Amino acid sequence: MPEMGRVEAVTFAEIEGAAGRIGGIARRTPVLTSRGFNARSGAQVFFKCENFQRCGAFKIRGAANFLLSMAPADLPRGVVAFSSGNHAQAVAVAAREVGARATIVMPEDAPRSKMEATQDAGARIVTHNRFTESREAIARGIAEESGATVVPPFDHPWIVAGQGTAALELLAEVPELDALVTPIGGGGLISGCAVAARQLRPAIRIFGVEPEIANDAFLSLQAGYPVEIPPPETIADGLRTVKPGVVTFAIMQRLVDEVALVSESEIVETMKFLLTRMKILVEPSGAVAAAAVLFGKLPERLGKVGVVLSGGNVDADALADFLR
Amino acid sequence: MPEMGRVEAVTFAEIEGAAGRIGGIARRTPVLTSRGFNARSGAQVFFKCENFQRCGAFKIRGAANFLLSMAPADLPRGVVAFSSGNHAQAVAVAAREVGARATIVMPEDAPRSKMEATQDAGARIVTHNRFTESREAIARGIAEESGATVVPPFDHPWIVAGQGTAALELLAEVPELDALVTPIGGGGLISGCAVAARQLRPAIRIFGVEPEIANDAFLSLQAGYPVEIPPPETIADGLRTVKPGVVTFAIMQRLVDEVALVSESEIVETMKFLLTRMKILVEPSGAVAAAAVLFGKLPERLGKVGVVLSGGNVDADALADFLR
Repeated sequence: MPEMGRVEAVTFAEIEGAAGRIGGIARRTPVLTSRGFNARSGAQVFFKCENFQRCGAFKIRGAANFLLSMAPADLPRGVVAFSSGNHAQAVAVAAREVGARATIVMPEDAPRSKMEATQDAGARIVTHNRFTESREAIARGIAEESGATVVPPFDHPWIVAGQGTAALELLAEVPELDALVTPIGGGGLISGCAVAARQLRPAIRIFGVEPEIANDAFLSLQAGYPVEIPPPETIADGLRTVKPGVVTFAIMQRLVDEVALVSESEIVETMKFLLTRMKILVEPSGAVAAAAVLFGKLPERLGKVGVVLSGGNVDADALADFLR
Repeated sequence: MPEMGRVEAVTFAEIEGAAGRIGGIARRTPVLTSRGFNARSGAQVFFKCENFQRCGAFKIRGAANFLLSMAPADLPRGVVAFSSGNHAQAVAVAAREVGARATIVMPEDAPRSKMEATQDAGARIVTHNRFTESREAIARGIAEESGATVVPPFDHPWIVAGQGTAALELLAEVPELDALVTPIGGGGLISGCAVAARQLRPAIRIFGVEPEIANDAFLSLQAGYPVEIPPPETIADGLRTVKPGVVTFAIMQRLVDEVALVSESEIVETMKFLLTRMKILVEPSGAVAAAAVLFGKLPERLGKVGVVLSGGNVDADALADFLR
C-alpha cells in the first residue's frame, strides 16, 4: 500500500463554519421531488438541486469556502486554479467576490462558452496544450512566481468542508433521510456530504456513483488505496478524474457504504427523464446519482433517499445531441 | 359591439376557496430567481415555476378546482374535455383523483406522447379529424348522450378561480411585487391571477403577453370586445386560441394594464436562456412572459416583477430542434 502520509480529517464543525462563511456567495438551492421519478424508480427521492447553484454547480461552495478561509494577507497575491469546467468558473466568481485576482489555466481547446464565462467573471485565462503540457505544473509555476495560492479542485479540507454544506442544507430540510447518493469525481462532494450527513443522521447510508468507465473510486475503495485509471472518455466530463484525492479517499474509506456504477446510456436516459419529466437541466456528471436510483443500481427499499444533482452546465449544442 | 350577455365575475374569495380545495391535487410550485436573468433584463424577477406543476403546467389548478366544485351527484356521469395539450392531461389526472371518468377529445394526429400521458392518467380518448370535425361539437355530443359535464379549457369562473391560485401563492411568497406578467391564451391564467394579485397588492401592474402572430387578446382589448383571429401558427402551441373567452375578456378588460407582444425568435431565445442559464425547461407558451421582460417589451423600471412560467411540456425532439 502506498505511503499516504498524515491525512487531515474534516470535521462537522468545519462544515458548519463553511456554511456560515459562504452564505453571501453561494446560494441555498431548492429541494425538489417528483411523483414521476418516484413511481418509475420505486424510491422516495429528494433532489438537492445544485444545478440551480450559482455558476450552475456545487463547486462554488468549496471555492468560496477556500477563498474565505485564506489568510487575508495572502489574498492580494491572488489565486490560481486549473480546470476546464465548473471549478474554473467557481474560483473566478468566488475570487471576484472577495476582491482577489484569479488566474485560470485552461486547455486551449476548451469550449468557448466556458472560457467566456470565466473571463466574464473577471479572471485571467492562461491556456495550455493539453497534449503536451501539464496544467497542474503550469498552475504551480504561476503560483511560485507570483505568490498566488493554488485552489485545488477537490483534495483539500477547505474544499471538502465547503462542498459538505450541500448535505447540511439538504438534511436541514429533510432530516429523516435514510440514504444519500452523490456523484464521485475527485471525491470532494461526497466526502463533505458524508461527514455532514453522518453527523446529523448517524444511521444514514452513503452511496457514491461513478460512470462505469470512470470507476477510479470504486476500484480504490475495493483495493484499499487510491488506484489510478487511464483518462476516461465518459460523457460525464466532471467525473474524468483518474484517481481519488488523499484527503477525500480517507473520508470515503471511512464513510461511504458502496459505490455504484452507471453506463453512459443510463446517464443520457436519466438526463432526458430529468429534463422532459421534471423540467430541469442536469449535466451528465450531475445526473449519475439519479441514474443509479432510476436504474436500480442501489440496494432495494432504501426509504427516503437524498440525491445530489451536482450541476447543470451543458452547452445547447451538446444537449441537442443528447436529445436525439 | 357584440352581445355578451351577463358575465359572471370571479371574486378573490373564490380564488381563496379554490386554493383550499385543490391542495391535494395541485402542488405549490417554487419561486426561483436568477442573477443572470436580472443582469440581462435590468429587472428584478421572481419566477413562478408552473413548469414544475403536476402534469407540467398550471392547467391542473383550474381542472382540479372545476372537478372539486361540481355537484357530487354529477361526478358519476363523468367529465369530457377537448384539448390536444396540457388541459387534456390536467382534466384526466384531476378526474382520476376525484374518482370520475374522463373522456378527452383529441385530434387523431396529436403527438403520441400526449395521448399516452392522457391514457396513462386513466382517461378514455376519442379522436377526431381536426380538418373535418369540430372537437367542441364532438365533446358536447358526448356530454349530451352520457350526461357527462364538459370541463372548458378557460372560459368558466371555476377554471379562472383555480388558475388564480398561482398568483395567490406567488404573492404570499413575494408580497412586495410591483408587477405581474403572465402569458395569455384564452385568458384563464391572467384573469385569475389578476383578481388575486390586485386584491393582495392594489398598486400592482398586470401585464399579459402573447405571440405577435397570436394577438387576439391584444386586438380584443384594443377594440373593446372579443376579436377573433385566424388560427395562428405560433410555436407557442398553448396560446393558439383565436379569441378570448367571455368571462376572461371581461376580467382582462377591467384589470390588465397592457398586453405585450413577442416574436417567435424571441420566444426561442428566451427558452434557451431559461434552459442553459437557469437550468429549467419551459415550453414556448410558458416562456412568453419571460421573453417580454428579457426583450424589453414592457415599460421600464417596473421594480419587482413576478413572471409566471406557465408550463414545461416539450417533446425531446422538438426541444432538440429549438436548440439548433
